[in-house]
Amino acid sequence: MAASLVGSSPTTHVITALVGNHPGVLARVAGLFARRGYNIESLTVSVTENPDISRMTILVAGDAGVLEQITKQLHKLIEVVRVVDYAGVPAVERELALIKVKADASDRAEIMQIVEVFRGRIIDMSDKTFIIEVTGSVDKLDKMAELLGAYGIREMVRTGVIAMARGTRTA
Amino acid sequence: MAASLVGSSPTTHVITALVGNHPGVLARVAGLFARRGYNIESLTVSVTENPDISRMTILVAGDAGVLEQITKQLHKLIEVVRVVDYAGVPAVERELALIKVKADASDRAEIMQIVEVFRGRIIDMSDKTFIIEVTGSVDKLDKMAELLGAYGIREMVRTGVIAMARGTRTA
Repeated sequence: MAASLVGSSPTTHVITALVGNHPGVLARVAGLFARRGYNIESLTVSVTENPDISRMTILVAGDAGVLEQITKQLHKLIEVVRVVDYAGVPAVERELALIKVKADASDRAEIMQIVEVFRGRIIDMSDKTFIIEVTGSVDKLDKMAELLGAYGIREMVRTGVIAMARGTRTA
Repeated sequence: MAASLVGSSPTTHVITALVGNHPGVLARVAGLFARRGYNIESLTVSVTENPDISRMTILVAGDAGVLEQITKQLHKLIEVVRVVDYAGVPAVERELALIKVKADASDRAEIMQIVEVFRGRIIDMSDKTFIIEVTGSVDKLDKMAELLGAYGIREMVRTGVIAMARGTRTA
């Protein structure tokens, strides 16, 4: 399997790793993925409700066997406090995108309809462009980007997916 | 300076690096930050409008000198196509948070008022909890988390910040 930093694959899984807030932990996790050639589709690292713990969310490509290997390897890293695989867990998965789209005066009404349907927000406007903010599943954002592609996407930045179990269960 | 993976500091800067979509580039960037003890407040890596290019957004702590060093070091990595420092650039900066908050029947109305003021959305509900989805600046999300803390935050996950220049300029 050809490994890449960010790719697209028919089978993806969301993994959350709670890690101690130490220098070098990101490098060790990234090194683990690089050495073994695992495909990372997206990665986010940020603060949690506990200042000593950071939370990584990794969208990985691969089948159940690959997922099990990754989870085992992550558990071996001393800084990793907990690993949650959201396969089979009722969970919300969300990503944020900022999309700068060409918006000539004649196209604005149509673009605004798309934004409304996808419950996005226009957060910047120039005489030639909009910046659209939108959240949703990876698939929803892919679909919106595809529709906006007809007008010309000047720039797109996405956060990568984050996940949380529904109900009272916590990671 | 004590280095940490994710911390909080009075002076932060948003840097975007466009990188070739190759295995190992994340490990090299993370290694660079770890060796030099730079504080990463948050990191996101995801796809762009170009499938060969990934986009990293790094929120770093430090003064202008540190920022200049980081930018120089990133430029030396062969996979790094472009580095944008958003200091002084009119830009939108946004982050997505999912917050699971205790929501007893008697507290729900108050929590829903907070969600409305911050333009969040309640995307899951149990008899004891809400999951709130909210986007905004890092400061806005910090403030909302502080207000919701009065009811009890069970779990919080944030994507880390992403940024885009206003108007027609692109990274």
